[in-house]
This record gives sequence, C-alpha cells and structure tokens, in this order.
Amino acid sequence: MKRYELAGRRKLAWTDQAAVPVPGPAEVLVRVGAGTICNRSDLVYYHYLGEREHCGQGVFGHEIAGTVEAVGAGVSRAVPGDRVFVRTPLTSGFAEFALAREVAVGKLPEQVPFTAGAILQLLPLAVHATRGVRLGDRVAILGQGPVGLMTLQVAVRRGAAEVVVADLDPWRLERSASLGAHRTVALTDGGRVDRDPIGAEFDVAIDAVGTPHTVNACVDLVRCSGLVVLLGTHHVDTHVAVDLITWEKKGLRVHTAAEPTDTDRAAAMAVAERLAPAIALTPLLTESYPLERLPDAIERLSASSLLYPAGAPGPYPGPPPRTLKLAIVP
Amino acid sequence: MKRYELAGRRKLAWTDQAAVPVPGPAEVLVRVGAGTICNRSDLVYYHYLGEREHCGQGVFGHEIAGTVEAVGAGVSRAVPGDRVFVRTPLTSGFAEFALAREVAVGKLPEQVPFTAGAILQLLPLAVHATRGVRLGDRVAILGQGPVGLMTLQVAVRRGAAEVVVADLDPWRLERSASLGAHRTVALTDGGRVDRDPIGAEFDVAIDAVGTPHTVNACVDLVRCSGLVVLLGTHHVDTHVAVDLITWEKKGLRVHTAAEPTDTDRAAAMAVAERLAPAIALTPLLTESYPLERLPDAIERLSASSLLYPAGAPGPYPGPPPRTLKLAIVP
Amino acid sequence: MKRYELAGRRKLAWTDQAAVPVPGPAEVLVRVGAGTICNRSDLVYYHYLGEREHCGQGVFGHEIAGTVEAVGAGVSRAVPGDRVFVRTPLTSGFAEFALAREVAVGKLPEQVPFTAGAILQLLPLAVHATRGVRLGDRVAILGQGPVGLMTLQVAVRRGAAEVVVADLDPWRLERSASLGAHRTVALTDGGRVDRDPIGAEFDVAIDAVGTPHTVNACVDLVRCSGLVVLLGTHHVDTHVAVDLITWEKKGLRVHTAAEPTDTDRAAAMAVAERLAPAIALTPLLTESYPLERLPDAIERLSASSLLYPAGAPGPYPGPPPRTLKLAIVP
Amino acid sequence: MKRYELAGRRKLAWTDQAAVPVPGPAEVLVRVGAGTICNRSDLVYYHYLGEREHCGQGVFGHEIAGTVEAVGAGVSRAVPGDRVFVRTPLTSGFAEFALAREVAVGKLPEQVPFTAGAILQLLPLAVHATRGVRLGDRVAILGQGPVGLMTLQVAVRRGAAEVVVADLDPWRLERSASLGAHRTVALTDGGRVDRDPIGAEFDVAIDAVGTPHTVNACVDLVRCSGLVVLLGTHHVDTHVAVDLITWEKKGLRVHTAAEPTDTDRAAAMAVAERLAPAIALTPLLTESYPLERLPDAIERLSASSLLYPAGAPGPYPGPPPRTLKLAIVP
Repeated sequence: MKRYELAGRRKLAWTDQAAVPVPGPAEVLVRVGAGTICNRSDLVYYHYLGEREHCGQGVFGHEIAGTVEAVGAGVSRAVPGDRVFVRTPLTSGFAEFALAREVAVGKLPEQVPFTAGAILQLLPLAVHATRGVRLGDRVAILGQGPVGLMTLQVAVRRGAAEVVVADLDPWRLERSASLGAHRTVALTDGGRVDRDPIGAEFDVAIDAVGTPHTVNACVDLVRCSGLVVLLGTHHVDTHVAVDLITWEKKGLRVHTAAEPTDTDRAAAMAVAERLAPAIALTPLLTESYPLERLPDAIERLSASSLLYPAGAPGPYPGPPPRTLKLAIVP
Repeated sequence: MKRYELAGRRKLAWTDQAAVPVPGPAEVLVRVGAGTICNRSDLVYYHYLGEREHCGQGVFGHEIAGTVEAVGAGVSRAVPGDRVFVRTPLTSGFAEFALAREVAVGKLPEQVPFTAGAILQLLPLAVHATRGVRLGDRVAILGQGPVGLMTLQVAVRRGAAEVVVADLDPWRLERSASLGAHRTVALTDGGRVDRDPIGAEFDVAIDAVGTPHTVNACVDLVRCSGLVVLLGTHHVDTHVAVDLITWEKKGLRVHTAAEPTDTDRAAAMAVAERLAPAIALTPLLTESYPLERLPDAIERLSASSLLYPAGAPGPYPGPPPRTLKLAIVP
Repeated sequence: MKRYELAGRRKLAWTDQAAVPVPGPAEVLVRVGAGTICNRSDLVYYHYLGEREHCGQGVFGHEIAGTVEAVGAGVSRAVPGDRVFVRTPLTSGFAEFALAREVAVGKLPEQVPFTAGAILQLLPLAVHATRGVRLGDRVAILGQGPVGLMTLQVAVRRGAAEVVVADLDPWRLERSASLGAHRTVALTDGGRVDRDPIGAEFDVAIDAVGTPHTVNACVDLVRCSGLVVLLGTHHVDTHVAVDLITWEKKGLRVHTAAEPTDTDRAAAMAVAERLAPAIALTPLLTESYPLERLPDAIERLSASSLLYPAGAPGPYPGPPPRTLKLAIVP
Repeated sequence: MKRYELAGRRKLAWTDQAAVPVPGPAEVLVRVGAGTICNRSDLVYYHYLGEREHCGQGVFGHEIAGTVEAVGAGVSRAVPGDRVFVRTPLTSGFAEFALAREVAVGKLPEQVPFTAGAILQLLPLAVHATRGVRLGDRVAILGQGPVGLMTLQVAVRRGAAEVVVADLDPWRLERSASLGAHRTVALTDGGRVDRDPIGAEFDVAIDAVGTPHTVNACVDLVRCSGLVVLLGTHHVDTHVAVDLITWEKKGLRVHTAAEPTDTDRAAAMAVAERLAPAIALTPLLTESYPLERLPDAIERLSASSLLYPAGAPGPYPGPPPRTLKLAIVP
C-alpha cells in the first residue's frame, strides 16, 4: 500500500510498497477514506523530530476516517464495512490502511464524507476537555483553530450561558460566530490576551492555543474557584512558569484535555458517537489534497507562529492564513 | 486589649491599649482563648513583609479558638458564649479579641481546649483540599507538618486504601504512623523525592510542602488521569516552572487547596464541624506560649528551610526540629 | 391592596382592602406585575383544600413577576426598582403585592414582560430537575404542559443527544417540536405510555405528569442504571405502588424535582438567571386575565383529567384544551 | 463434579456427575473453595421458585471464593492459580467448579480463607450502594444482617461522621458496634422503626432489610434533599406503596444498590479489591457446612421472618437467631 511516514526532521518518507498491517486482538484495520493533518502534533513532529524527545513518541497522521477492512480477535464494536472515524491509530494515517485499537474507533454518521469525518477525531477530545463546563457557565476559549472551534460547539451544547472566543484571525472568528460563540474577540498586538475586551470572572477558561502566554492568561480570566483547561498542546515551549500563589488565592482547578485512560476514552467516544450527527464539520475543513501532495499541505500549515518558541518568534505572525483543516485522501 | 501586630519586616508591634473591635453585620467578635502560629503564612509575612507583595494582604495570626463575645446583625450560627474555632479572622489573632465573618466560625467540641482547638482551623482546609480523594484511592502526601498531618487524617477518613507520607523529619513521621499513614518515608538528600521508595501510580499526590521540587515531584508520582493537590503555599518561590507536555500526557488534574468562595467555605466548615470530635489534635500541638512571648515562638519556627528560596537555601536544612504547632495564649 | 385568597374548597375570597405586607429580614416586597396559575398545585389546592392535608400547606398563587418595592434588613441581591421573577413567594401572588424570601427572587431580563416573566419561576425547577441529564443522553419526557416544555428546553441545553416527548394533546406537541424536541409522540388510549412508539433504554425518563401510570412507565423506559425524575407533582393519587424488584434489577436512580434546601435553590436560581434571556416563554403563555377574572381562568384550567384520581377519572379526558399558562394581571 | 442445583420449590437436586463447565471468551473457571448462602435471594429462590417470576432468573449459589482453574480467550485480569472471590457466577456456586465472567472476579487477599472470602462478594455491592455517602454524613442503616454489616464498614470508610444502625437482634448489634457503628438501636414491636430512638434528619438512610415498612421508614428518617438507598432486595413483597408527595416535599433522591452495568461493576470491583485486606469478614461468618449438608444450612436460615409477606407474617419473628453467613465447602 501507499504510505507517508516521518523519517527525520522535516523529512517525509514515501513508499507504495508498504505492507498492509494485520489486526491483532482488540484491533481494527481501517481502509483510510481520508486523514486530516493535526495542526499541532503532526506539524511539531515534522519540524522537531530528533530535537525534542516527545516528537518521536506519537503517531504521525492520527486523524482518519474510513471503512473497517478487518477486525482482530475479541472485537465487538466494529465489523468490516462499518464507516468509522479514528481517534489516534497505531500506524500512520497518511496511508491506504491504518491499524487502530477498538477503543479508538467511533461510528461515522451516514451522511458525513470521510474528509470531514476525519475531523470528528477532535470530538471525543472536546467532550473530555469540557467535562468541567456546567449549565449556565461563562466560558472563554483562547484560539479558534480546529480544536478551538470543536470545543466551542461542545461548550455550547453543555449549556454554557456565554462563550467568548478569541483568535488572531478574524476569518476564523466568522466561523466561531456561526458555530454559536456569543461574542468574538480579534486579538492584535501579537496575540496579547487582556481582560479588556474579553472580560473576566469566567467560570472556565480554555487555552486552545498552548503557549506560556495563553495558559497564564487563562488563569487571569477565571473567577475564584474557576477552572482552567489546558487544551492546546505545549509542544514547543514545554516548560512554563506559572504563578502558584495566584493559583492558590483563586482556588484554581486545572484540567488537561486528552483522555488518558481507556475508561476515559471509551466514555468520551460513546458521547461523541451520539453527538456526531449534529456537529458542524464542513466549516472546519478548508481543502483536500491527494496523498501524494501531503508535503504541500504540510508546507501550507507550517506558516504558523505556534511552531516557534515564545522567545524566538517565527517569520509568520499568526495561524496559517484562511486555513483550518486540510484533508489528505489516499 | 493586648495585641501583637506585624509592623514591618521582622518587626512586631505590641500594645495593651488596642480598641476591642465591634462586630458589623454578619460578623462575630471572639474572645481569643488561644491562637496557633501558621508555619507558612505567618512566618513568611514576618520575614518578607514589604518585600513580597502578597505578604501584606493576609491576616497575621489567623488560627484561633475562643468564645463568642458578641455578634453583629443577622448572625444566626453563633451566640455569645459559644466555644468556637475560626478559619481566618478579620483582625490579628494574636490579641485578646478578634473579629471574624460568620462563615469563618465553627463550633468547637466541648472537650477540646482552646490551644488544640485553634488547630481545627486546618480541618476545613484539609476537607476541601482532599475533595478529589475517593474511596479506595492510593494517596501520597509530601510534607508532614501540621497541615500535612491534618490532611493525612482526612484522607484516611475519605477511605483512601493506602496513604504514603514523606518528610525530612523522622520525629514527625512517628506521628504520621500513629495517625493512620499506611507507610512513612523519611526523606534525605535535602528532601529529594523519588518514586523509589515512595512508589508511583498514585491516584492523588498532595504537595503539603510548597516548593518547586515538591510540586513537580507530585506530578511524577501520580498515574495517568491522576490528581495533584497544591496544598503547601508557594510563598517564597511563587513562580514555578512546570512541564506541561507531561501534564498533558498524563491527563493531569490539579486542585488548589483553599476554599476560595463563601459557598466552598461554608460547605467545608459544615463537614469540619461534624468531623471535629474525632480528629486528633494534641499530636499536632508542641507547646504553648503566653502572648507576650510570641517573638520567641516565631523565632523557634523560623528555623525552617522553607523560608528560603530554592536557589538560596537557608541556614537550617529542614523543618523546625521536633516542632509542629505552637499555641499563643493571651 | 387587592387580593384573592383561597378560603375553602372551590372557594375564592376577594378583598381590595388587604394590608400590604412589610418585608422582614432577608425578605423582599414585590409589586406584582403578573402571576401565572400553577396548573398543578394551585388547581389541586382549589379543588381539594380541606380534603387533602398538603393542600393547606403551600402558597396559592406562587408564580409571579414584578418590581421590587422594598427590601428587609440584610438583603443584598435585590434593590427597589429591580424587575424580578419569584420562585414561590410567602403570600398569595394573586394580589397587588407579595412578599418573598430573598433566595426566591431572580432577576428578570429586560425584554421579558411580566406575564411571560412569571413563567420563569419554572426555570430553576427545571434546572434542578434535570441535574442528572448529561451530555449525549437520550431523554424521554412524559407530559408537555408548561413544566414539561420548560424541562424540554433545559434538557436540550444540557446537551441531550435525543429528547423524545409525549403528550395527549397534539397542539402542545407542535410547541415541543419548535422548542427542540427531536421526536414527539401523541398519546392516545387515555394516555397509555408504551415503549412503542416512544422507545426504550433511555438514560433519563422524566415524569412531567404525575400519575401512578406515568411514574411506572418512566421506570419501564429507562436503561439499566438509568434515572427517573419525578417532576409532575403527585397531588391527587399521592400513594403509588412501585415495583421495587424491577427497580433493583435496573439499578435505578430516582430524583425528585424541587429544590428542597436553600443551597439547592440558590444554586438553581443562579443558573436560571443566566439562562433566562435565551429561554422561550411566549409559546408557553396562552392568555392573560385581569386579577378580577381569576375565577374564570381557574375554571378554564379545571378541565384537566389530572385533577381526578386514577380510579375515578374526571369528565374531561386530557389537559385543558389548547391551553398552557394563563397569566393574572393585578 | 459434585453440585447442588435448585430443581423446584423447596427442592434441591444433587449430583456428583455434573460436567465441569468450560470457560468461553472473557470467562473464568473457578475451583470453588467455599460458597456462602445469600440470606435473601438464595433463600427466596428456594422458597418461591415457580411461584414468583424473578426466582427463576438468578443464579442459585452466587457467592463464592476459590482458585482460578482455567480462563477463556481474552481474559487478562486472572490467570490459573489466582485466589479469587466472585460477585455472581454464571453457574451454581454450590458445586466443585463454577463459571464466571471476568468482570465478576476479584483478587482474594492472601490471608483470607475461602469461607470468609466468599463473603467479599458483598463488598463491591456495598461500595456501589454507598456511592452517595459523603464525608461528614450522618447515616442510618436499617438491618444488620451480612449485607448491613458490610455496608456499615464501607459507610464508615467513606467518612460518615455518624452511623446509626438498627436490627431486631441484639446479638447482631454487638457486631455492629465492634465494626464501627457509632450507635446501635435494638428494634422491638415486630421491627417497627421510629425516629425515636433512631433519630432524624439523616443525610442517608439505607434499607438493608427490604420490606414495605423499612423502605418507607427510610424516607421518614432522611432530611430534605436526603438520599434513600434500597439495599435489601424486595423479593417477597415486590410492590410497595410509597408516598410520592412526601418524596417531592423532601426533594428525595433514591439509589438502588446493585451495580447494573459492567462499567459500574468493574469500578466497584476495583475499589473492592483495594479495600478487601482491611475489611472484617470473620465477624460475619457463623459456621461452615460441607457441601453435602447444604439442606441443613438452608433450613437454618429459613427461620427468617423476611421470607413471609408483610400481611402474613411467618412463624418466626426475626432473622435466623445468632446466625449471619453460613459457608458451604465442597
């Protein structure tokens, strides 16, 4: 089969002779309909493999949708022919086939094409990340990239009375407004986050960017006993200085976003499967590329200031312009 | 009335002519039976007032027990003559009388003397701090000063299946064992915390010290989806570098300890009042001093390495030797 | 002032010389803009006062909106001039003024007229009643009277993936569909509830009717470990035979609906105040009557089969035709 | 192998030629070390099989401990040789071997003999049943048979500030006191439960008997917004008349006890395995019988008034005298 793999820093390895994986017990083989590029980890792995330890530990191409081709022993939640989306497979998703654990597979609603369906992988993440949002809460979300827009939709569904979102890119904020944000704030000044005009005393502040500035800004935005959610992965500046005496005075709570255990993941996936038909995906999908053009898609997404450390900002001052998810079709 | 106040860095102001405060609406005036010195904030305020911003914001002498002398309008939970403990008064507790908000006042069990009773102020804190401990959990507590020993007792009452505690001072660990710790670990090497011999994969790790090293050690001790509780106040090194990519991989949750809202405080106080008769206090009380000897008591507690920044360790390598709570009796 | 009170079974007492109440501590005096009739308790009190013990224990006319006229000592959440809704006052709401405890008063959004605003009293009830509804749940609601329609709106806001509602009156179900019900079921056969066509294995089933049949039907509709919510008041047939071995096999949980403590009520009210601007009220309001015509409004609502015991059904086979809330304007 | 099965009303079928079951996928074969008789369902099945529908639906002999003999495909939590207890097997536990689903199997602590170990089956039940007990709660438990005594131990471990227990048999209450009950009440007058001398305003009331009287008494004992736990199985009088207007006024919550889903069961079992070493079992074990004498043991336990309907009380006025659990050893 055809497959792209990450072979080194900024180095993609192509083959059309890769062996199709064979599902072991509790594993599922998926014929990939489409994959989307993760604007955070795929990009950071690409730019820092070999330089940062964690970049060799994740799967490159971990957002896919497709059709179940075969299942291993003991699999009960999927049968060949099922249309599915996958929350992190075991093998590269930039390929014709990918292997996944059964718990990572969710049912794809009938009407959703694979290109949009791959984005559903963000839904169980957003479900788990927002587990602390309660009916009537006031919620701030910093960052309206794909994960921020998905989280916005779930926060609204959890009954937040007010969701305020912020991003550098006004083009993204138009989508936010159409997806339920009660107020949108266009950041300027290099992305500096202030109480004015965002507001303060939020019940929950969600950092969907993942920089030292945004995580500490979230602490500033929440009320006493408020909740800060770390959703954007801190891939580049992994170590962040936080002001713990402020945390203590506020009686802060902090949640990280990803579902770390199978129990958490299964629960989030079950909810995601039920919500999936009502989630808007096409506003998050910008364009599709054939598998062979993966390098072009990665180059396009690499125009992101988030790929550079806080102290040494990159050549581009914001997120990739007018771009959310890019799909890769084998 | 007699009163000590903090007048500047390492400077106590004494008077025997202070005006007795008058309780306003929802306030209670308490005739102080005894106060205990907070080994963290009272000490840090004393040593850093004027040098660190937060040191002027709290009340000096905030742990007291006594008798209600008068109540303001609308007070329904206390009447003159009630024996009470106070979780943070509005005026210095190193005095003959102190003022407190009604929500800060808890009923002192009959048999508890005031010197031990002042320590009960730690109980609602420990109740709130351990709100994430569940039946069957494995819990690690770093630090077995007064707050660590109180938290140990509450963690055991919450049904923790295993509570492992660690401290530099073996004398303290004898108390830990008698108060329900399933295992005690004497730290050496300047307090360095390691999985061996403490263990790993804890459901909850509680930092009852409050240094950059102990908070990050707690992250290391917990399992995926585990909970870290920030209980020891980060008074000296307030800004701590944390490794957020590890937080994300673990799916970490973080709770701070103090009850930041009146709703939280009232709930914790109600539970504390019910638990109070069964809590061991005398093992936490080392000695009583008359009010006039407050300076001696403070000097004794100042032999604590925690009063010095991590980069510039103080002259003394651990907690004040063979000392837990010191009571001050007007 | 003018006032209607309940003076005996089916006997209203009118006066225009009633004394205006004076607010005591923590009480609020409200100039009534409008009140709505409770289709359950007001009606049952009217028809059974003196015959059933509980009918003399509640307040007649307990759903009002208006303007704060005066406040008692210690009131901090309301000032004269505030537009408010009240969740159960202390004195008859069918009057020019009514007294309420501070905790019972919620802020009325600017754009909401008093006649619709009085219905907001159902919102904190619906918030509390649905506290067990979680994101992604499948929910069944039996009964689409005013409280059922309000609960539908809150269940949707809590992120229910599917809300199925049932009622005898197709006219009501049109409103249900417009307010977010995913599926509506018109009951026939005297209101008999069956899995076909409603469905089964619901996560939550809410009895918004309150008859022996509907409560047991809810037990049948939920999955193992499911939740049954008793929302419709069991005013007429107060004692109901339930099959506890089925409860045990299902691992059933049961919630009653009303907020029984001040803590519960304050929490529900705070959420209700935040949600209020987005709640649809006019679809629930059928007509307004001047205070003098209260008897006519009560007669209209008395065409309800729910006012008669299960064994001795009344002359009318369903809810009052084409009628939801009736407002009474002093 | 040897085996007793229930063949009809009050009719035990014996064989020594039964086939040893073969574990299928996710199943475990256990060599039975001992089983205990369930004082509720085993007894009711024996006395009512064929007369009450549910008596043919459960497993006769469902409390066992033993050694894993073999495991089916996909089993990961048990290997042959493991000492285990089983929470409800798939085949009769009054036999030399029994089959169980993997989720039903818990690790037996080393020092616990099989006769006592079989009683551990009650532990995950008690863990789940008490899920609503919180730190500081006041808890009443009606009934101090084996399940009541186990629940008492878990309620204490959950941090209940006061646990009051009641039973007809003072011999049982001596055990209650030694196992942590703060107060014991010997019921007289046929088991009538009154607020005096039990008390009132409990946060949680647990019916560990299972009669119409005890379930309604629990409603009377709890405070507003309190929790009633239905723990004793309503096997004989399955349909109980409850007063729903009182439920509504109290804002009651009700939990049933058994873990109805695999997720609930796995969670309760995981906690039970951790708590098991600290649970007192021998006070609950009265005597052991060889398998052949199962009929004698059943006869002894049949002296229980609970085996007769409320309207037609049996010949014996209380629980089997001086008897808790009887173990059956193959």
